[in-house]
Amino acid sequence: MASPATDGDLGRTLEYIRQGRDRFLDDLTGLCRLESVSAWGRSLRETAQAVAALLERAGVEVAIRETAGQPVVIGRARGRTDRTIVFYNHYDVQPPDPLEAWVSPPFQPVLRDGRLYGRGTADNKGNLTARIQAVEAWNRAGGGLPVSVAFVFEGEEETGSPNLGPVVQENADWLGRAEGVVWESGYRDADGRPTVSLGVKGICYIELRARGARSDLHSSQATLVPNPAWRLVWALATIKDGSERILIEGFSDAVREPSPADLELLQAIPDGAESMARNFGLPGLLGGLKGVAAHRRNFFAPTATICGLNSGYTGPGEKTVLPSEAMAKLDFRLVPDQDPEDIQAKVRAHLQRHGFGDIEVKVFAGERPARTDPSSPFVALVRSAMRETYGQEAIVYPTMTGSGPMPVFSDLGLPVAGLGVGHPGSAVHAPNENIVVEDYFLGIETVATLLARAGATP
Amino acid sequence: MASPATDGDLGRTLEYIRQGRDRFLDDLTGLCRLESVSAWGRSLRETAQAVAALLERAGVEVAIRETAGQPVVIGRARGRTDRTIVFYNHYDVQPPDPLEAWVSPPFQPVLRDGRLYGRGTADNKGNLTARIQAVEAWNRAGGGLPVSVAFVFEGEEETGSPNLGPVVQENADWLGRAEGVVWESGYRDADGRPTVSLGVKGICYIELRARGARSDLHSSQATLVPNPAWRLVWALATIKDGSERILIEGFSDAVREPSPADLELLQAIPDGAESMARNFGLPGLLGGLKGVAAHRRNFFAPTATICGLNSGYTGPGEKTVLPSEAMAKLDFRLVPDQDPEDIQAKVRAHLQRHGFGDIEVKVFAGERPARTDPSSPFVALVRSAMRETYGQEAIVYPTMTGSGPMPVFSDLGLPVAGLGVGHPGSAVHAPNENIVVEDYFLGIETVATLLARAGATP
Repeated sequence: MASPATDGDLGRTLEYIRQGRDRFLDDLTGLCRLESVSAWGRSLRETAQAVAALLERAGVEVAIRETAGQPVVIGRARGRTDRTIVFYNHYDVQPPDPLEAWVSPPFQPVLRDGRLYGRGTADNKGNLTARIQAVEAWNRAGGGLPVSVAFVFEGEEETGSPNLGPVVQENADWLGRAEGVVWESGYRDADGRPTVSLGVKGICYIELRARGARSDLHSSQATLVPNPAWRLVWALATIKDGSERILIEGFSDAVREPSPADLELLQAIPDGAESMARNFGLPGLLGGLKGVAAHRRNFFAPTATICGLNSGYTGPGEKTVLPSEAMAKLDFRLVPDQDPEDIQAKVRAHLQRHGFGDIEVKVFAGERPARTDPSSPFVALVRSAMRETYGQEAIVYPTMTGSGPMPVFSDLGLPVAGLGVGHPGSAVHAPNENIVVEDYFLGIETVATLLARAGATP
Repeated sequence: MASPATDGDLGRTLEYIRQGRDRFLDDLTGLCRLESVSAWGRSLRETAQAVAALLERAGVEVAIRETAGQPVVIGRARGRTDRTIVFYNHYDVQPPDPLEAWVSPPFQPVLRDGRLYGRGTADNKGNLTARIQAVEAWNRAGGGLPVSVAFVFEGEEETGSPNLGPVVQENADWLGRAEGVVWESGYRDADGRPTVSLGVKGICYIELRARGARSDLHSSQATLVPNPAWRLVWALATIKDGSERILIEGFSDAVREPSPADLELLQAIPDGAESMARNFGLPGLLGGLKGVAAHRRNFFAPTATICGLNSGYTGPGEKTVLPSEAMAKLDFRLVPDQDPEDIQAKVRAHLQRHGFGDIEVKVFAGERPARTDPSSPFVALVRSAMRETYGQEAIVYPTMTGSGPMPVFSDLGLPVAGLGVGHPGSAVHAPNENIVVEDYFLGIETVATLLARAGATP
């Protein structure tokens, strides 16, 4: 067993990072030029190969694992101990639409006012390269990695990670022995404080369709012909009531109550209710919530959301039509230990029970929730590295409110912590996506420090 | 006072009609070539002038009355008595969309299998020319009109008749003394029986709009940000319940119970419930209604119909969006003595009362209902003319289920009866609009006979 990394090793590593800033930024810029939109299915292999090349230059052994979809890039580098930190990231990005809203072209990254603009800078290429570059720094300047590292980079995160599970599963024997997983994303909050997130919500996405007569009819026939728009409205009104209670029988049965440790975290999270409401043009948040009450609902409550409604005539003016069908798209954001399979079955049973068995239910691929115990040693390790890098305590969110393939890892018993180089104005999934360049360098340093402290843990 | 028309006069009139069939059909074909789509606002003056020319050839004195919209053509011809029959028709037509669904071009009328195909053949140019041609026949062959006639032809029926009222009002002194009004439309039923309708339903058309955040958001924010699609669903669910009860306070207060004479009519109307359900691809009509119960609901019940719904993402697949607004279009079909102004005020009050005062209500121009007493002498006159022409008793509908500017006339105390040259497959407002040519000639004869019998009434 090699000798543990010293503060001197870390110092040289951080110095390498500071000296290498221009090239590191060039690496990221180069990667962001590749149009790896998974929804388009182009440039993804080329991007996987570019990522593999960055890993190899950092001294990481790489395997490109083919799947039914886009390849998964697996990297592995031995450190001074067998103790292993896993990095999960993705090299695919969201489509850049609407293009006309971009100030500079999405795939021609440019620096402007201390920010790097381009699709993927925040989600997720900036985090991906920052992780690799920290490892490169240790290998080139720090005398070798303090701990072993593994990289799992997929190319289909933005399309629901349909092929990630089996790849992680077949590597479960060694991945499952890791200390924890550094998750793909994170950001500084509105006050510039670093944040770390300890979970994801699950999601169940469905489409409901009510059908009536075989074609649209003149609305004068509404006396005798059933209207699927009304049936859909009545069915929806049985799903959630005006006080935001979800009425699906058994929907909340599996909801795990927040632990005292979870609730403790909420005390330290600043109250953003007023500024959030202002930004959205609202008089206030739902139910007038703010402070800890708002946080509690935001992190621990599942949701039932109408994402889309369509029926009959929706153009300008009046058309007296009795629609032949009506459609609603809904998503349910789930918390531990809800399961999308169970939820969709409960939605079906609920509709049946309430006399809406005729309404068709189409279910899209769901994702499960995941949560890491805030008192896990891995979380303490991540927090200490962030404290050291940013000079202040990180805000710890018990979970992200979005979804992702985290259960693929947490099912192995691994703690997972999300951190990264974004900020509240990063415009993730939106035009003019960007990161603050200074945050990018701090992101590399955070990972370098994390590796040092992981190596120092007895 | 001239001597009343004799059966011989009528015989010569009908013979003139039979001899003139080819030219009468050419008149109609020519008129249907004019693209008088009121929604487009083109060709309407040209069509009004063509109509005026047909009236003048029939021996009718014509005035073209300008309005803020399209001109109203007023015709007047003295008969052997001052007793007057009024004909209301319109020279405008619906748009022909979707064009690709027409077998032959909508404005190039053609004969196929005993039918004349073209926009306006059934609604309403066929009825308009048939009325004029009956008058022409009396003037040319019958020794002069048995009674006086008046024509009120507007060019904006398909856009809600916004300018008809004042024109009728300014002629109220003489129009109001008429025996009754022959309304613009009517048809033979599925079994070939002639029908006459004694009213129209009213209509109140509104658009509801709920608003949330100033832009669409990621659906993970649904814990704290109100969703206008839910608000709209909840608001709609307070308007009508699953048993088709309209829940707006006071909505039915003004509904006039059907009279014994009204209900008597229903007994003679054939039960079309099964074939109607089959045509629409439904297991049955609403509530399993059929026979007299279905007729009662169809003619005497007001409706609340969702004509359109729109919110958020409505394309293929999944998009996790929290919509910023949601829209519903609704129409209310009204029966005497409901009033669209009163109904829209009640909808507003209802929304307010149920906590949905934030939902915006946009009201489109409404139309009032109208009903003629089935025992009116004018109805007896019309029925006898139909009996004579078709060799069978006409089916009498207490009302049409659609709307129209009938109150403009019935407000003058005039009985109104709708009859015409359509049939159940006429595809009114739809592609391949058509009439059966034989029905067209019978339509002319019906009016000619009606004028004779009106002149013979003591």
